[in-house]
Order: sequence, then structure tokens, then C-alpha cells
Amino acid sequence: MSLRAATRVTRSLSGLLPRWGHGQAPPLLFSQQRNNSTSPKIRVEFNPTSGVAVMHMQSPPVNSLSLDFLTEFCIGLEKLEMDKGCRGLIITSSQPKVFSAGLDILEMYGKSPERCGEFWKAVQEMWLKLYGSDMITIAAINGSSPAGGCLMALTCDYRIMADQPRYTIGLNETLLGIVAPFWFKDTMANTVGHRTTEMALQLGLLYDPSEALNVGLVDQLVPEDQILSAATQTMTKWLAIPDHARQITKSMMRKPTIDRLTSNREADIQNFVNFITKDSIQKSLRAYLEILKKKKT
Amino acid sequence: MSLRAATRVTRSLSGLLPRWGHGQAPPLLFSQQRNNSTSPKIRVEFNPTSGVAVMHMQSPPVNSLSLDFLTEFCIGLEKLEMDKGCRGLIITSSQPKVFSAGLDILEMYGKSPERCGEFWKAVQEMWLKLYGSDMITIAAINGSSPAGGCLMALTCDYRIMADQPRYTIGLNETLLGIVAPFWFKDTMANTVGHRTTEMALQLGLLYDPSEALNVGLVDQLVPEDQILSAATQTMTKWLAIPDHARQITKSMMRKPTIDRLTSNREADIQNFVNFITKDSIQKSLRAYLEILKKKKT
Amino acid sequence: MSLRAATRVTRSLSGLLPRWGHGQAPPLLFSQQRNNSTSPKIRVEFNPTSGVAVMHMQSPPVNSLSLDFLTEFCIGLEKLEMDKGCRGLIITSSQPKVFSAGLDILEMYGKSPERCGEFWKAVQEMWLKLYGSDMITIAAINGSSPAGGCLMALTCDYRIMADQPRYTIGLNETLLGIVAPFWFKDTMANTVGHRTTEMALQLGLLYDPSEALNVGLVDQLVPEDQILSAATQTMTKWLAIPDHARQITKSMMRKPTIDRLTSNREADIQNFVNFITKDSIQKSLRAYLEILKKKKT
Repeated sequence: MSLRAATRVTRSLSGLLPRWGHGQAPPLLFSQQRNNSTSPKIRVEFNPTSGVAVMHMQSPPVNSLSLDFLTEFCIGLEKLEMDKGCRGLIITSSQPKVFSAGLDILEMYGKSPERCGEFWKAVQEMWLKLYGSDMITIAAINGSSPAGGCLMALTCDYRIMADQPRYTIGLNETLLGIVAPFWFKDTMANTVGHRTTEMALQLGLLYDPSEALNVGLVDQLVPEDQILSAATQTMTKWLAIPDHARQITKSMMRKPTIDRLTSNREADIQNFVNFITKDSIQKSLRAYLEILKKKKT
Repeated sequence: MSLRAATRVTRSLSGLLPRWGHGQAPPLLFSQQRNNSTSPKIRVEFNPTSGVAVMHMQSPPVNSLSLDFLTEFCIGLEKLEMDKGCRGLIITSSQPKVFSAGLDILEMYGKSPERCGEFWKAVQEMWLKLYGSDMITIAAINGSSPAGGCLMALTCDYRIMADQPRYTIGLNETLLGIVAPFWFKDTMANTVGHRTTEMALQLGLLYDPSEALNVGLVDQLVPEDQILSAATQTMTKWLAIPDHARQITKSMMRKPTIDRLTSNREADIQNFVNFITKDSIQKSLRAYLEILKKKKT
Repeated sequence: MSLRAATRVTRSLSGLLPRWGHGQAPPLLFSQQRNNSTSPKIRVEFNPTSGVAVMHMQSPPVNSLSLDFLTEFCIGLEKLEMDKGCRGLIITSSQPKVFSAGLDILEMYGKSPERCGEFWKAVQEMWLKLYGSDMITIAAINGSSPAGGCLMALTCDYRIMADQPRYTIGLNETLLGIVAPFWFKDTMANTVGHRTTEMALQLGLLYDPSEALNVGLVDQLVPEDQILSAATQTMTKWLAIPDHARQITKSMMRKPTIDRLTSNREADIQNFVNFITKDSIQKSLRAYLEILKKKKT
């Protein structure tokens, strides 16, 4: 399967992240794109007066988390983190109907172990930087947010989701035969508790906005066209708190979870590479790509 | 007090597991039976087409968890576990009005330390096997489920309870002067969280079905006559998930809790034996048996 | 600023613990008082028949947790703990509109490191004694309860709050640029879970009674004039449980949290002293005291 073909298929599916149900094909977990490699995948608007940056994810079709995307994301994040004037970050999507479709499947299919390892390290890096950020981080979830997209949202301090019933959010890795690693699990359990996480991860549950609000996966629902203003309003509330005390408090809450990955980072990479390069898993991924392809034709 | 007398007393109380309240006698925590020792205490129906087994607990009067019962239960579980064709297990009761009344009090009263230790090891074994099962496990709770009966239900992946207000469920050990061990506590905290567990265990709370649903002790209520069909329906949903990914995910969620017992198993047995053979505790158990006896007469 | 002036300022604010909102001054976190040093700050009524003691906090104006207060509190607690006849303790306030305004700011401002360390050790001692108490402990929260006052309530077994919308409760330390230490955090997380704690601590949230009930920060709301009778009624329910089993269960739930502080006690003191004696923090505290002063004039 050519990259070009994969890209076309994905693009057509970007708005079709279905809620999981009987007799349905598994929803789009991952996506893939390689074109536009010269256009920036991230656009950052920083307002020095308010101290707030807005990061627009603009990688067509569905903000899939490719190695290139993650690298750009982390560089952007690091720049803001080092800017003393930047106190808050809002993350949102410029792509229609999707926040981020999650990890790029093409980074995991038919790739060398070395490349897979490099990719996974970038996924870890994104999480470590964002979960441990000194900035106030708000996810303005203006579209579906499965798998890695959900992780990115969970890693922020606050989540506002567009109240559009067709959008879904969740760590649905099992549906593809993939397993969310322990730090995805920890991040979700820190947000919605052990039991909800246990069931959601086993079943690969995708929640619609009101369900997500109900279990605590997101904090607030607003009409889609008000999502940025709502995020800004919430940000103002958080900005009123003295930075230093808030940062120490945030670190106290999250450090044990971050430390678990930091001290097991190499093993976690090895674990991912061993798992993803298995014949059976590659076969699953191929089957999934075939489904996408057939859907297209 | 003869075993026969105890049996008779219990039998008469099997349907009387009251909700705890002021001025009421403590509810039936444990039960005892020694008759029917030749009849199987467990009946397993396995459907190779669906890959689902139904385990009927049929140990009169109240499916008390005696050493014999637990041994049979674990053998049945192990057989199913080893059968590659068996992917799901539904556990339910054939006894009226009770799922399981919990640990058999006669295994703890007037027994030698060795025997008590043997019994406790079997309780551990049941929990270890069930909590760590690779199968999808669903408790179809068609009756009251105090103490060890509640533990068994909590140890499954999903709990459906008959919506009959007279049925109750909970870890009510303190009411008898007994203490739920740390792995009962861990299992409950993994399900309903720390605070609910702290209060429920201290007070020995028994919840009626709607309360149990409300705190998350059970996942779903259905009319009693629909409990097996509801369990089957839920099972179908879980069966749609690729086994391998689901099993790894389940293990990731539960392994830390399982490891805590595995690495402290002998100490936990010793702890139980020391506690249960104390004069004061034996006196409590005797008093409880007397209450049961008086209730009968 | 003289102690007398500080005292006067605080006194005038004792009933003004506002709910946090935009454009408002930060609420009263701490308070200070040095007068009445000869009057007892705690009054204990013990009823030998019921086995229940009621501890009235009566340190004007707002039951601030000064070193003297904490010392008296711990001595009172220890006496009751050693009295075999005392099985339950209700903690309430004799001051109008406030349960306890939390740690005394004057114990932290302009004090020597040695004195700060002594003070912090007393705060630890209060928590260790109360969280690990063998008695049944019920907080009858008949007024606002910010910061250390909230900690004291959280440290009990059960919380009943007066249903008066002007009263608030929460760990709002960040509002003053201070950080709640890890064991404040652990106590709150054990009560309301990780996510609610993460957000509440970062934002320094103060909850009104119905919000507090909703997130589980308190267990029950009653009209203010019924708070002691409600506490007594709940106590009766808890007294029905055999002490020994309840105590072991309580210890099992709380020991890991207590052990974390016990094994890090010196480091925690050093950490507090280093933090609180920083120029920037002292400046924050001074600014806060100035705000109180201006409010007065």
C-alpha cells in the first residue's frame, strides 16, 4: 500500500470517526499522512499581553501524531515553556471535525524496529513535556479525539469539548488489537479513576461529549463555535492563581506518574517495539489499513 | 452446637439477609453447610459455539464458601481457563434469593490453625484465579451477596444485579467483629474508590441494588428474570474485543493488586489464622451462631 | 505590623470568608490571634454513658491553628484517646460562622526557622493523631473551613456541614502563594479522588456546602441548628460497629498515607521551613496581611 493511497483513504475518513457499536467497523484509531511535509503542522499564536498561547494543530487531514508532527509539537512546546512571558497554553485543532486522530498508523506499520523506537520516544516526549508543563494547559477539543488524541487532551490541565454528539473521545486502542501503555492508563486513571479506566480500556470505549462529561473525561461542554472563548475564559480563572504555588502543586500531583515513565523509559520503548513488530500485530494493522482502503472504494 | 443444628439454622435464614439498620440483628455474613457433600456444588454449562461458560453455584442453602466449595470452584475455573475455546464466564446462583452468602463460618469456628490456614489459602486461590482470569468474567448477581459473596462479584469484570430491593451486597465483615483483609479492600477500592471503601468497610455497609449501582459497586440492574440474558448480551459486547489486547489491558490494570497478595501470601494466611483463632474472635463467632440458632427457635 | 493590629484586623474578618471569585480579594486562609492566651482554646465535654466526647473549638475570633491551639488540641485528643471509655469524638466550633480558619499566619510570618519548624511539627502532630485516631471522629462543620480548617475536617471519619451557602470549605492555599503539602493532598485525594484534588488544589477552590457535598468533600448537609444532633445520630450508627474490627479496618485504610508522613517527617519540616522563610513567600504573606489591614480601615 502506497503512502499516497493511505493518505487518500485517511483523508476521506477524517470526519467518520464513528462511535463504537455492534456490527460497526472499528473506529479510526490512528491516521496517516506524509504530504504537506513542508507546511508547518503546528501554528502558534502567542499574545504577550495575556501571556496565553494558542496552538493550532493543522496537519491534514486529521492531525495524526506522526514523528514529524510530534517533533514539531515538542519544539513548539519547548519554546513556549522557556518563554517566561507565556503562562498559559490552549491546544486546539484547525482541521474540521477532529481534534487529533491519534498515533499515525504508518509509523507503526512495516517500519524498522529502530524507526519504531524513535517514534515511540517522540510519543513519550510529547506526554512528558505536556503532563509536566509549568504552563496552564487547556485542551479545546473541537472534534473527535480517539486514542493518542485523547491522551493529548487528558495530559492538559483542563478539557473543554465541543458539544457535538458525533464527536467522540476515548482510549480505544484495544479495538485495533493494540494496548494502551501504562502511562496512558495512569493518565486516564488520574482523571476518571481506576474502575472507569479498567472498563474503558478493556472495551476501547469511545464516549460522546455528554458521556465524557459524565465520567469526568472532559470538564466542560460548550457549543463548538464558543470553544475558544470558553477556553480563554477558563484560562483567565487559572491565570489568577500565583504561578509558583500552582506549579509546585501541579508537580506534586503529577510527579509520581511522570517518574514511573522517566525511570522506565527505555524498557517502555523496547516493550512497544517488541509488541508492534510482532507478525500478529502487523497483520492486524494491515487488516485495518485494508478496511480503510475498502471503505474508500 | 452441632453441625446439623447450624445447618438447619442457616438454611432457615438463607432468604433473610436483612439490610443493616438500628435495632436489627447483624445480617447473615457467612453461612455453613456440610450436607450434600457428594453433590457437585458447581454446575458448569459451556457453549463451544459462543465460547461462553455459565457457572451455576448450587450449594444449598446459600452457596457458602466452604473449603469444599472453593476447591470445586477453583477446579472448575482452571478447567475453563485452560480451554482455549472458552473466552467468557458468567457466574450466577441456582439458590433462591442469594448469590453467595460468603465465607462459611463453620470453617472458621472451632477449627485447628492448620485447617483455618488451609481454608484461607483456598479463599486466596479463588480470588487470585478469578481476579487474574484471562476470560471475560461477568457476575449475574441474582440474590444477596454479602462479605465473601460480594468479593466474588467484585472480582469479575462486570456486575449485573437483579433489581430486587430486598437483595443486598457489600463487604460487611465488621458487623461480625471480623476484618476484611487488604486484598478485599484493594478490590473494592479499585471498583468504588478509596472514600466509599473506607466508609463501607468501617460500617460494614450492605447496599440495596440501587444504592450499589449509585456507588458503582455494580454496573447494571435488570429485572431478576432477565439477568442471564442481560449477562449474555453484555458478554457479546466484550467478546467483540480482540482477546489478546483485552487480556494485556486487564492484566495491566490488575497486576499491581494481585502482586500485593502474591508476595504476601504466607503472611496473609498467618495473619488470618492468628486473628480468627483468638479467643475474643471465636467468642464473637459463637455469639453469632447463637443468634442464628435463637432466630430459628 | 503589631500583633494587636493583626488581631484586630482578623477579628473583623472572621465572618467574611468569601467564596473565591473574579475580582475578589483572596479569602481568609489563615488567621492570627494571641490574646486570650490564658483561656482554654478547646473545651471538651465527655459523656461517659454514651462514650462520646464533644470538642468545642473556642479560640476567638476564628479558631486559627496557632502553636498554642494545636498543642492544646493534641493534648485534649491524647487524653480522650487514652480513655478506654471514650469511643467517639465530635469536633465543632464555638465561634460564629467559622469552623476553623486554618493555620495561623502569624506563626509563619517573620518567625525564626526554629519557631517555624516547631509550628509545623505541631501541625503534623495534629494530623497524625487525628487521622490515626482509634476513636470514631466526626466533624460538625458549623462555619467556614478553609485551608488547615478543611484539613482538620478531612482528617475525621465523617463530615457534616451546616447548609449555609455563605460557608465555604476547601484547601485554598495556592491563593496565598502557599502550597498544601503532600499529606494535605493525600488526605484530600483519599476523600474526593485524584482529579478533583488536582484541580481544587491548583485553583485553591473553596466549595459552598452543596458543591462540597457534590464532590464528596463532606458527607451530609443539615440546617445549622441541627448539626450537633445530626452528628450524635451518625455517631450512634458508628458506635454500633464492634470497635476492634472498625479500628483495624480504619488503620488498614489510612496506614499507608500516615506512613508516608511518618517516614518523611523531618524532611517535610525542613521543606516547610525552607519554603516559608523565603523572601518571596514572606513578601506574599506581608502583602496578605496588608490587605487584611486595609480591609479593616
